[in-house]
Amino acid sequence: MSRALLDTATGTLFGVALNYQGLVDQHLAQFHEAPYKQPPVKPVLFIKTPNTRNGHDQAVTYPAGVKHLQPGPALGVVIGKNASRVSEAQALDYVAGYTIINEFSLPEDSYYRPAVKAKCRDGFCAIGPELIPRDQVKNPHALSLKLLVNGELRQENSTANFVRSIPQLIAEISEFMTLYAGDVLITGTPEGRVDVLPGDHVEVQISGLGRLINHIVAEQEASV
Amino acid sequence: MSRALLDTATGTLFGVALNYQGLVDQHLAQFHEAPYKQPPVKPVLFIKTPNTRNGHDQAVTYPAGVKHLQPGPALGVVIGKNASRVSEAQALDYVAGYTIINEFSLPEDSYYRPAVKAKCRDGFCAIGPELIPRDQVKNPHALSLKLLVNGELRQENSTANFVRSIPQLIAEISEFMTLYAGDVLITGTPEGRVDVLPGDHVEVQISGLGRLINHIVAEQEASV
Repeated sequence: MSRALLDTATGTLFGVALNYQGLVDQHLAQFHEAPYKQPPVKPVLFIKTPNTRNGHDQAVTYPAGVKHLQPGPALGVVIGKNASRVSEAQALDYVAGYTIINEFSLPEDSYYRPAVKAKCRDGFCAIGPELIPRDQVKNPHALSLKLLVNGELRQENSTANFVRSIPQLIAEISEFMTLYAGDVLITGTPEGRVDVLPGDHVEVQISGLGRLINHIVAEQEASV
Repeated sequence: MSRALLDTATGTLFGVALNYQGLVDQHLAQFHEAPYKQPPVKPVLFIKTPNTRNGHDQAVTYPAGVKHLQPGPALGVVIGKNASRVSEAQALDYVAGYTIINEFSLPEDSYYRPAVKAKCRDGFCAIGPELIPRDQVKNPHALSLKLLVNGELRQENSTANFVRSIPQLIAEISEFMTLYAGDVLITGTPEGRVDVLPGDHVEVQISGLGRLINHIVAEQEASV
């Protein structure tokens, strides 16, 4: 049933950069230099295009010729009805439910350039395994989030460390653009991203949402 | 018939920044400074999200509280079949046809930050009035492109001044991601962008493709 619910998440995949306090703290010094001058005052958004969509237990291709590939564990928030200029107080009414995202990316040196080439490779956004309805998640801001590579814990954080809460994100984004039913907010990846290699078994766990598993394959293997 | 063809252009809207030689020339000095250090060596891409889709003869809302709104006349290339790792020599086989795009945007000071908030307001990407099939456009790299505001010519350029040709764009993008049938490449907006205001009548003409007309309305008017 929850897997069928996940099929409603067909819309735009919005990534939110820098939404973990630890990550912002790491970058603070850099943000006071040119060209940034100051830390971002609004959510920094990026898009995972439709070709990046991928699922639970699927292969993720390690592109030929790249030096690093990094998983990006994140809580996914699926929008349940069209949201335009929604207040923080009402924002959660617009949420259908939650899922796990693994937002793969080639690491970048800076935040100054559009990241399509680094973030929008085919299959670079795994989603699933299911959509848990909003009313079954007591507090989405107190979920444990873990990344395991080949069974070993490599990243661990909590959605309690969000810079912006889910209602804040929905209010700030819907202030300038309409979020549609089926759109997905990727609420941010915590600091400490790790490299993975072909052959690796990558798993994201979020408390109450299950486990999202993907297998990294080399480009040649994938095309055979 | 060509308007029905336009209905096939339902996919992702890919913007290409800095694809007119005159625009790159204007920015050359800046690109040799930090953080860029050098001019971009690959296409700089951005996404116009689905909420930006708009049509011929439709209103475009001037957002409350912004200081400048700029039209972005551009040739739109509609992909006709899925394209992955396509060579330049074969690239045009993957084109269904051409249309006019007016890619509205709030002006930005730099290219260093994801531009969702500036480029992805509701209705900020007008497309139309029709899709002209590829075989009816003799040379897509010799089209005149004009922007008129209230009947006055404000921008004029030619697709002969592209930095990257259409086959180059398709080859370079499909090298790292799949372009799907129905996706649209917005091949770039020339230098000399102008401001428009509520009440303005904005028209883009591209030789052989017709006229794409939009009306700028203030935010309050639009919501009445």
